[in-house]
Amino acid sequence: MHLSVYLSGEIHTDWRDEIAQGAADLPVSFTAPVTDHAASDDCGVAILGAESDKFWHDRKGAGLNAIRTRKGIEEADIVVVRFGEKYKQWNAAFDAGYAAALGKSLIIMHGSDHAHALKEVDAAANAVCETPQQVVDMLRYVIAGTLPG
Amino acid sequence: MHLSVYLSGEIHTDWRDEIAQGAADLPVSFTAPVTDHAASDDCGVAILGAESDKFWHDRKGAGLNAIRTRKGIEEADIVVVRFGEKYKQWNAAFDAGYAAALGKSLIIMHGSDHAHALKEVDAAANAVCETPQQVVDMLRYVIAGTLPG
Amino acid sequence: MHLSVYLSGEIHTDWRDEIAQGAADLPVSFTAPVTDHAASDDCGVAILGAESDKFWHDRKGAGLNAIRTRKGIEEADIVVVRFGEKYKQWNAAFDAGYAAALGKSLIIMHGSDHAHALKEVDAAANAVCETPQQVVDMLRYVIAGTLPG
Amino acid sequence: MHLSVYLSGEIHTDWRDEIAQGAADLPVSFTAPVTDHAASDDCGVAILGAESDKFWHDRKGAGLNAIRTRKGIEEADIVVVRFGEKYKQWNAAFDAGYAAALGKSLIIMHGSDHAHALKEVDAAANAVCETPQQVVDMLRYVIAGTLPG
Amino acid sequence: MHLSVYLSGEIHTDWRDEIAQGAADLPVSFTAPVTDHAASDDCGVAILGAESDKFWHDRKGAGLNAIRTRKGIEEADIVVVRFGEKYKQWNAAFDAGYAAALGKSLIIMHGSDHAHALKEVDAAANAVCETPQQVVDMLRYVIAGTLPG
Amino acid sequence: MHLSVYLSGEIHTDWRDEIAQGAADLPVSFTAPVTDHAASDDCGVAILGAESDKFWHDRKGAGLNAIRTRKGIEEADIVVVRFGEKYKQWNAAFDAGYAAALGKSLIIMHGSDHAHALKEVDAAANAVCETPQQVVDMLRYVIAGTLPG
Amino acid sequence: MHLSVYLSGEIHTDWRDEIAQGAADLPVSFTAPVTDHAASDDCGVAILGAESDKFWHDRKGAGLNAIRTRKGIEEADIVVVRFGEKYKQWNAAFDAGYAAALGKSLIIMHGSDHAHALKEVDAAANAVCETPQQVVDMLRYVIAGTLPG
Amino acid sequence: MHLSVYLSGEIHTDWRDEIAQGAADLPVSFTAPVTDHAASDDCGVAILGAESDKFWHDRKGAGLNAIRTRKGIEEADIVVVRFGEKYKQWNAAFDAGYAAALGKSLIIMHGSDHAHALKEVDAAANAVCETPQQVVDMLRYVIAGTLPG
Repeated sequence: MHLSVYLSGEIHTDWRDEIAQGAADLPVSFTAPVTDHAASDDCGVAILGAESDKFWHDRKGAGLNAIRTRKGIEEADIVVVRFGEKYKQWNAAFDAGYAAALGKSLIIMHGSDHAHALKEVDAAANAVCETPQQVVDMLRYVIAGTLPG
Repeated sequence: MHLSVYLSGEIHTDWRDEIAQGAADLPVSFTAPVTDHAASDDCGVAILGAESDKFWHDRKGAGLNAIRTRKGIEEADIVVVRFGEKYKQWNAAFDAGYAAALGKSLIIMHGSDHAHALKEVDAAANAVCETPQQVVDMLRYVIAGTLPG
Repeated sequence: MHLSVYLSGEIHTDWRDEIAQGAADLPVSFTAPVTDHAASDDCGVAILGAESDKFWHDRKGAGLNAIRTRKGIEEADIVVVRFGEKYKQWNAAFDAGYAAALGKSLIIMHGSDHAHALKEVDAAANAVCETPQQVVDMLRYVIAGTLPG
Repeated sequence: MHLSVYLSGEIHTDWRDEIAQGAADLPVSFTAPVTDHAASDDCGVAILGAESDKFWHDRKGAGLNAIRTRKGIEEADIVVVRFGEKYKQWNAAFDAGYAAALGKSLIIMHGSDHAHALKEVDAAANAVCETPQQVVDMLRYVIAGTLPG
Repeated sequence: MHLSVYLSGEIHTDWRDEIAQGAADLPVSFTAPVTDHAASDDCGVAILGAESDKFWHDRKGAGLNAIRTRKGIEEADIVVVRFGEKYKQWNAAFDAGYAAALGKSLIIMHGSDHAHALKEVDAAANAVCETPQQVVDMLRYVIAGTLPG
Repeated sequence: MHLSVYLSGEIHTDWRDEIAQGAADLPVSFTAPVTDHAASDDCGVAILGAESDKFWHDRKGAGLNAIRTRKGIEEADIVVVRFGEKYKQWNAAFDAGYAAALGKSLIIMHGSDHAHALKEVDAAANAVCETPQQVVDMLRYVIAGTLPG
Repeated sequence: MHLSVYLSGEIHTDWRDEIAQGAADLPVSFTAPVTDHAASDDCGVAILGAESDKFWHDRKGAGLNAIRTRKGIEEADIVVVRFGEKYKQWNAAFDAGYAAALGKSLIIMHGSDHAHALKEVDAAANAVCETPQQVVDMLRYVIAGTLPG
Repeated sequence: MHLSVYLSGEIHTDWRDEIAQGAADLPVSFTAPVTDHAASDDCGVAILGAESDKFWHDRKGAGLNAIRTRKGIEEADIVVVRFGEKYKQWNAAFDAGYAAALGKSLIIMHGSDHAHALKEVDAAANAVCETPQQVVDMLRYVIAGTLPG
C-alpha cells in the first residue's frame, strides 16, 4: 500500500522535513505548497506582470498557487494540515475544508491551546495530533499495522 | 430565479439580519449556522451527555453543528462567508474551502486589512466585498439584473 | 429548514413512532423500511412468484426492499440507524455504510454494551445516542438552535 | 487485466492467506484491514495519547483504521467481505454498504446459516460464496476466463 | 413517499396505461418516451429539415428523443423496461444500461422465453417480472408496504 | 413533464422573447444571462468599487455574472446556445462546453455560414437549428410528443 | 497517448483479433468479456454450485461476468460495441447504455441493415462503422493524427 | 510532482513546440488536438465514408476529434487554451468551458485586444497570459517553486 500525502499549513518550521525523514523507509510520497514565502507571494506578478494594486498582486499569485494546491489535495490519500502558533492561517483551514468535501482522510496538527477554535475542523478529521512524530507513527500504522515502541 | 444562500462566519454582529432585511423583497432563502454562541458550544453535551474532557465536549457539539452546516452549504446556490475583526475564525475558512470544493458560488466579506491573509480564499470566490449592502446589491443583480443607484 | 430523515434498523420496538411524535411540530419528514416483518420477508415471492430455495426467496424480497431503502437514504439529509439488543442486524450496518459513502449525516443509536462492536460505525457518525428523545432533541437543535430543558 | 481486491471482515482465521496463496499466479493485489486485533483496538491511544473513557479510546482507533479501510475500498475493483461464525461483525457489513454505494463489485462469503440475516447484503453482491477457494476461482475466471476442474 | 417512474421499452401494447390505471391511487408520476411511432421516427426532420440519407434522418430524430429519455431516466426513482415479443428493442436495453450506470432502481419485464438472452440485464435489476399488474403490486409495496391479495 | 431551459448566447436580438412567447402554453421555465449589456459589463465595479485597470473591471463583472450563469446551467434540463452574426461570442461557446461537460441536453442555434466553425460544438449537441420557432417546436415535441403543422 | 479500449458485443467472429492485430503497433490495451460462450454461461454454477432453475443458473453467471464487464468499461477510454447479424444481443446494447451514462467515448459497429434499429445507440456514439479495419484506423488517427492510405 | 497538460486552441503557430521545448527538463507530459488542419477536417469521411452534405462531413470528423479532446482534457491537471488573432475559435472556448466544468486548472493565453471578449473565460482561469514562455515559467513554478530570472 502506497500513500500520497499532502502537507498543508504552517510554513515557518521544518515539520515537513521531520515527517519526510521519519517516513523515509515507508512507501509514501509527499506533496506540499511552495514553502518559499517570498516566491509564493510574488509568483503571480513575477511571471504575469506587475500590479499596482496589492489586492490584484495577491490574486495573481493565489491563482498560480491554487494549481499546485488543487493537484496536491486531489491526488492525496491523506491531507495533513498543521496550524502553528502564529498568523491567521486561513488558507490552512480552507485546505482542510476543501479536502473534507472531497472525502479525503484528514489529519490535523495543532497545539492544545487551539483546540477550541479548531473544533469544527478537528471534528472532520480522522485524527488530531501535535507532533510530526505522531504523523509518522500514523503513516507507519496505516501502511504496516505496527505501533511505536 | 430563486436563490438559496448560506451565511457562514462571524456571529457577533447583525450582518445576517442586515442582508435579510435588504433582500426582503427578493426570492432568496437564507440559512446559517446556529448563532447562539453558548448553545452552539454546548449542544453536544446538553443532548448527548456531559464530557469531562473539553476536547470531547467540543467534539460532540461540532458533530451536531456539522449536520446543519452541511445541509446549508450543500443546498446553497451561494455561500457568503464573513470574516470579522477578531478571533481565528477557522471554521469560516473551512466552510469556504468546503463550498469551493463543491463548486458553489462564493462571496467573501472582510475588511481590507485581512486581504493579504485571505488571498487564497478570495481567489476562489466570485466576489470579495466589505458590507452587507454589497451582498444585497449582488443578490439583486444576479436575480433581476438591476444595479444600485 | 426542512429535514428529510431516514430511520433505519431495529423494527421490533416503536422507536420510530416515538421520534415522529416528539418531532411532530418540526418541519421534518420521515421515511423508513417496511416494518411489517412478514411482508418484508415475503414481498418478493408474493408478487413475483414462489421459490423453492429459501436463498432465492430471500433474494427476491431483498431486491424489492432495496428500492425503498435506496430511495429513502438517497433523499435523506440525516440517516438514523438504531441497533437493538438482539439479532445480527447486518442490514442496519449495511445501511450505515451506504449512507456514509454518500456523505449523509449519520446518527447511530445503541445501548452502551454495543459500543465496542460498533466503534467503526460510530466513528463515521455525527452523533451517537441511546434514546429516541435524544434524536428528537438533535433534530430540534439542528432546525431551531434550541436546546432541551 | 490487473485486479485490486480488498478483503474485509472476519480476522480470526487465515482465509486471507488462503486466497492470496491460491491466487499467487494471478495479477491481483490484495489489501486488507490491520488484522492484529490488539493493535487495531489500541492504535489510536498508542499514538495519540491515552483516554480514560473507553468510548473515546475506541473512537481514536477507529479514526486511524478508517484511513486504511477507505483507501483499500476506494482503490479496489472487488471488495470481498467475509462473515464468520461469531461476533457481531458490524464493521464488515458497514464496509459492504460503503462498497455498494461506491459501485464496487462485491463478493460476500458466509456459511449458509447466516443466509437469511445477510439477505440484503447478499442482494447487493455479484456473488455469494462459502470458501476461499471459490474466491480464487472467481478471480481466475474474471481475469482469464477459465473455470476450475 | 412519492415515486417517479420511467416506463421504457416496448410501444405496441398498452402496458403503460395498465400500470397507470392500476397505480392511479398511488403517489407515483410516470414518464415515458414518445410512443407515437411515426412521430418518434420523423420528429428530427419534421422540425429541423429533411435529410436525403436515412441514416441522418434517423440521427436527427434520435437526438431529439434523447432529450426526453435522458430527462425521464435521470429524474426517475425507478426505471421499468419492458421487452416485448418482437423487434430488436436495442434502445430498451440501452436505456436499461444507462439507468444501471446511474444507480437507478431497475425493474425488467419480459416473457420467460427471453430470460436467457436478457440474463445480464436481469442481473442488474431489482426485480424481473412479466405483467403490468406485478409492476403495480411492486409500486404499492414499495410505497405502502402492503402486499396483494 | 416540466422543462428548465437556459438560453445562452447572443443578446442583441429578441430571440429569447420569441421562444418564450411561442412556448407560453408549455410547462417550461426559462433562465438567461443578464441581457442589459451595460449592466452586465459594469455590475462588478458598480457594486464592488471602481477599478483603474479595464482587465480587473471586467473580472469583477464576470465574477458576478458567473453566479447567474452557473445557477442557470446547472439547473437546466436543456441549454440552448445561440450564435449570432457578429462578435466573437466566446462566452457562448464556453457555456456550451460547460453544459456539455455536465451532461446537459444541448441545442445550438446558428446560421449555416457558421456551421464549419461550430462543428465541434454542434457535434456535442442534441440538435442544431436556425430559428426560435424550431426551438419552440422541439420543446413542444419533447414535452407533448406532437409535431408542427 | 495510451488508450484503453473495451471491445463489447458479438462473440462469434474474430473481429477482436482483427482489431488487435491491426493495432499491434499502437499504444492501446484491449479488454473484452469472456468470449468462451460455454464458460460464460456456466461460470456461476461451476464455481458457486448448481441451480435447478435455469433463471438462477443464468443469474449466478451474469453476476460474475458483470465484474469483468464493469472493470473493463469503467477503465476504458473508448468502448467499441459490435452488433452482429444474429441474436438479440441485448447485453451489447446494455453495455453501450452503461458506457454512455459514464461519459465514455463510444464506437458502434454494425451492418447497414441494423441502422434503423440502432439509431438511438448510434446517436450516443462518437462514430458508427462497419469493419474492424475502420476501428483500427480510428485508433491510429486518435493517437497519431494520421489517416489511412 | 508530474503534470499532465492539454494544449488547446490555435493551431497556426508553433506555440505548442515553444512550450514543450521550454519545459523539456520538467516532469510534464503534453497532449493536444490533432494540429494537421486537413486531417482534422477530413478524418471522419476518410475513415467512415464520404458525405455529400458538408454538415455531416464535419460531424463525422468532429466525432472522432472529440475522442482525443475528451481524453486529453479529462486526464489533464492543467488545460492551456490559446486564442490567436484570427478565426472564431469557438472550439477553443468550448474546451475551456468543458475543462472549467470538470474543475481543471485553466490557463488562458491571448493578446490584450481580446481581453474584453474573453472576460468570462478569463474569470474561470487560474492565470491569463500572453506568451508560451509565461506558460513554461508557470509550469516550472508549480512544479519546483522557482521563479524566472
